[in-house]
Parts: sequence; structure tokens; C-alpha cells
Amino acid sequence: MNKRVGKQTVRTDSRPKIISTASIVGPKEGQGPLKDYFDIILEDDLNGKDTYEKAESSMMYLAINEGIRKANLTEKDIDYLFAGDLLNQLTSSCFAAKDMDIPFVGMYGACSTMTESLAMASIMIDGGYANYAVAATSSHFSSAERQFRTPLEYGNQRVPTAQWTVTGSGAMILGKEGNYPSVTYVTMGKVKDYGVNDVNNMGEAMAPAAVDTIAQHLKDTERSGDYYDLIVTGDLGTVGKKITTELLKEYGYDISKNYIDCGDEIFDHERQKTNAGGSGCGCSAVVDCGYIYKNMLKGNLKRVLLVSTGALLSSTSCFQGLTIPGIAHAVAVEMV
Amino acid sequence: MNKRVGKQTVRTDSRPKIISTASIVGPKEGQGPLKDYFDIILEDDLNGKDTYEKAESSMMYLAINEGIRKANLTEKDIDYLFAGDLLNQLTSSCFAAKDMDIPFVGMYGACSTMTESLAMASIMIDGGYANYAVAATSSHFSSAERQFRTPLEYGNQRVPTAQWTVTGSGAMILGKEGNYPSVTYVTMGKVKDYGVNDVNNMGEAMAPAAVDTIAQHLKDTERSGDYYDLIVTGDLGTVGKKITTELLKEYGYDISKNYIDCGDEIFDHERQKTNAGGSGCGCSAVVDCGYIYKNMLKGNLKRVLLVSTGALLSSTSCFQGLTIPGIAHAVAVEMV
Repeated sequence: MNKRVGKQTVRTDSRPKIISTASIVGPKEGQGPLKDYFDIILEDDLNGKDTYEKAESSMMYLAINEGIRKANLTEKDIDYLFAGDLLNQLTSSCFAAKDMDIPFVGMYGACSTMTESLAMASIMIDGGYANYAVAATSSHFSSAERQFRTPLEYGNQRVPTAQWTVTGSGAMILGKEGNYPSVTYVTMGKVKDYGVNDVNNMGEAMAPAAVDTIAQHLKDTERSGDYYDLIVTGDLGTVGKKITTELLKEYGYDISKNYIDCGDEIFDHERQKTNAGGSGCGCSAVVDCGYIYKNMLKGNLKRVLLVSTGALLSSTSCFQGLTIPGIAHAVAVEMV
Repeated sequence: MNKRVGKQTVRTDSRPKIISTASIVGPKEGQGPLKDYFDIILEDDLNGKDTYEKAESSMMYLAINEGIRKANLTEKDIDYLFAGDLLNQLTSSCFAAKDMDIPFVGMYGACSTMTESLAMASIMIDGGYANYAVAATSSHFSSAERQFRTPLEYGNQRVPTAQWTVTGSGAMILGKEGNYPSVTYVTMGKVKDYGVNDVNNMGEAMAPAAVDTIAQHLKDTERSGDYYDLIVTGDLGTVGKKITTELLKEYGYDISKNYIDCGDEIFDHERQKTNAGGSGCGCSAVVDCGYIYKNMLKGNLKRVLLVSTGALLSSTSCFQGLTIPGIAHAVAVEMV
């Protein structure tokens, strides 16, 4: 059976269900506008560990286990864990997976990992390859900052376009049955590079990928820009969100009334001094698992397009003068 | 339709075909025992680039394009590229994908990436989600050495258990039709950690994962150890191969007569001074795409179990005193 729709999209006939989610955030995120939607707010962003990397990994472990518990399942029910993060060699995901008895498929899509892993987990359920699968990701301000930018002790100043990496982890548990938000379409994105090389302006680097994937998804599914109650990009922040809205108009799609960005929503930028907004794999993970999912369960949202966005840079690629390519993967989640 | 077999394996009913492969290696690999099986042997391991990272990425780009060309296809026929590598944030894969017009799914499984990406590409074909998909990976001695170990200029001595990262890239093109080697079963592995923390002994760190995945695959499929003409692990080298053979006996499987390891085969260890053998994502990639695939096409091999193996370490995790967890994914490839 061919499940392809248009050029770049696939249809999931069995409509895999997101049967539970879990979100865990750090103290700063827990003081932001979406605080009531997170399951666990840490008082200490080290979570009792002696390094930020171990703390991040422990947060992912906690999110996955909390998600499994909320679904009334145990580890042995889960057929696959799809997970990734920003740390070199997926340190956070690998060490979370190490303590679980679940087959592990490591993914890297930078901050697009929530929808990348959700897409793959949904397909495994839809195709009959899994009964239950988990999609998860994480990021941590302090582990990301010192890996990608400067030592924390340096205390560097932040330019207005800079974003603040979210300390958080989100996990989605996918299954076959139940009256839950369902994955209906998946559009995997292409890498887009418009020559941006400013590591303090990720929003601009990722926006073209978001635009390309959203436009292709709407074209493939023959849906209009206002079909969705909300189109939710990953972590473009205020700068990237503005660019995305404007560029999509040139493609003939006006999403200005039903479009939010997780990086824009998660912080009160002025009060919390987060400049252009939140970023990191954890950003779209906790907003999608928290705010979006819970509003779908309440009936406030019926049709949502999740579009996590990733900047595919490394400190090596930047030092070697390369630009910052972006990617975005779209997953349609609907109450059907 | 449920495609699950046993606890951890899935069956691919439509038997996706590996319709072509391409392998490209550096000069040292081109002087090894398998040199006649590689498609392209570089004279200069910089491949005309000014850094080893750019060279590695260009090798992956070349392997993918050569594979697509050999399959008489063009980029626009390919629905998904599944790829990953060892470099921080998949520098090699992301920058190869950037120059292609193909939806990109980034994967990280360390040196298990060849079978990790092959598994996912096969499932996408089998489930009707893709008509054609590519699985690819790469590694480069010089980019890996300076990222994971010491600056090249340091000229460190190598202990007997140390392995030599293969400079190479392999790509497999998957499709639905034709008389080609077919993927019949996929067994995704769990992360296994037996407390090894010696970064100069990857074979020992990865062997338990190989053992676990091979034993589970044989149990799930109810096949005996000698069902396969060859069981081919990724890059355990001489040390890890010996451990794997012995441990599998304890599980009741004697594979001593039909078992090879890519890291053991790719170099003439004494002459080429590669100590315990080859390693890196590129190791199983070029051996599977070259030696194994071409022998299947010739009719010399009919049933093969590919088991690439990965050590899930990062320099950060090592510096922080963590152990080295391993993972292995198994893909059965048969002439059917």
C-alpha cells in the first residue's frame, strides 16, 4: 500500500495515538507563561547531579519514565525509543537509554528532534512495526551554552537576536488505541541553507527550512493555511517567527492568525531577559508535550501542525567558516 | 498488520531490495585486503578539501551520488536520506545533505549507523512510505582522531587493543523491485553497558551489545547460528570478535565457522599496523557495501546478517568518568 501524498508527505492510515506525554523543565522555564502546563518543574537545574550533562540525561530519563507511567505501561511494553539531543554524540539520550530495557534508535535533528522522533515513532506504529513507541528529546541551557558557545564562567553578553536554550525534556508515548490526539500526516524536511553564519541568530538560519516544510506540507495535503487551529514551529523565536510569517505569504499562505512559535511562547522575554526567545530541542518538546497536548485533550485545539526546527551547526563547522543549514519536520496531530 | 516477530524483531513482508551500493575509501583502506571491492579509492584523504571534516562530508556526498547513479536514478527519485556519522552534531552528514534535494533524517548510532540507517530505510520502503530511500554513513581517521582522542600532531602511541578509524563512506540505495539482495528482518538493539571505560578498547565495550542483538535476533526468528552464510559484525576488531564468539557460545549459539567482523577484515593488521583492527561508521559501511554486497550479487553469499556495532561515548562522557555503553542493530539480507 502506497502511503505517499504529494511530493514529500506520508499519510498514517491507522492514525497512531499520542496516548500520553510528559514534560519536565528547569526553574527558569517554570517561571514562564506556560508553567501550569509542565508536569515537573525542577527546583535545581542540576537535578541532584554533579554535571549539567548528567542532569540533562537524568531529565530525559525522568520524562520518558513519567510518560510511560502516565500511559499505564511499563518499559517492557515499549518496542522502540526514538530519542536525540544537542550534546556531542547524543550524550544525554544514550545515557538515558542505557538504563532502559528498550531498543534505542538514536536521532539527530538538532532542535527539530521532537518532530523527527515523533514522525519515526508514528510510522513504526502505523506500519505495524510497533505496538508502543516513545519519542523524546532534551536540552539544557548550561550544557548547550558551554558546548556551543563559551564557558559559563565567561559570562558573555547576549545580542538581541540570541536565544536562550531551554532546560527541559519532553516525551511522547505512541500507541494504537484510544481517544487521543492522533498523528495523521508526516512531512520530513529537506536541509535548507541560505548562507546565514551568525551563531547568535538561529531564528534567521532556521526560518527558510520551516517555510519550505510548512508550504510543502500544505501543498501535499491540499490544505489551506487556516485548516489548522494552530501551526506551531519549534524554536524560531521572535526573529525567525517574523521571517517565517512573511516568507510564507510569498508562497500564498497567510498563517498570521493561527501561528505560534514555541521559542516565542515559553518565556516572558522582557521580564526573563531571554532576548529573541527560547531554543533547544527541549523547547518544542516541552511546549508540544505540555501546552499543546493538554489543550488538545481539553478540546481547545483539534487540529495542530507541529513543526520543530533545527540548526545543523557544530562548533567545528562554525570554526571552519561554514554556514548554518536548517531543517524542519512537520507532523499533523488531530482529534479524529 | 502486525509485523512483529518475537520480542525485538520485525519482518519486512515486501522484502525491500538493496538495488545498489557505493563505497569510497582512503588510501590506507585502498591498500588493505578488500581493496578490489571498493568503488572509489582516494589518492589523498583530504579529497581536495582544506579540512578533514570537509573531506569526510565530501566523501559521503560522493558515495550517495555514486549509489544513486548506479541505480539509474536521480536525486529527485529518492524519498528519504537516512544518514549519520561520528562527528559532533553529524557535521559530515548534515553538510552532505545540505547539497541534496532529499528529505533528511539524521541518525546517530555511533559505528552502528550503517545498519541503523539501513533498518529505517528498509522499513520506510516496506511500509509503503517510500519508493526509494538511501542509507549512508561515513568516518575519517583524522577527523575522528582529533575529535575523540588527541591532536594528530601529538603523534600518540597506540596500545594493542586500539583500533584504527576507517576513512570511508558507504551508501545503500533501497527500492521495491528487482533481483537484488533483500532485507527480510530487522532487529533493533538495546544499549548495553558492562562498565568498560577504556577508550582504547572499543571492541570490549561493544561486544556485549553485539552478543545481545545477535542472540535475540536468532531467538526471535527461530534460526540457528548456522542459518546465515555469514554473520558480519561492524567493527569489533580482533579483541571484540573473540569476546563475541565466546559469549555467544554461552547463549547456545556457535557462530565460529560463519562469523566475520568488518574491523578484522578491512586491514592487514600486522603489515598495516592497525593493532586490533578497523573501526568507525565507515568500517562496516564500506565492507557491507563493497565486499558483502558484491559477493551477494555474484551468488557467493545468499544469507547474511549485518550487525553494525556502536560505542556510545563522547569525550565529555569520558572526561566525566562515565562508562562506554554499546549498541548493535541487526539487519538480515538475503537473496530471496
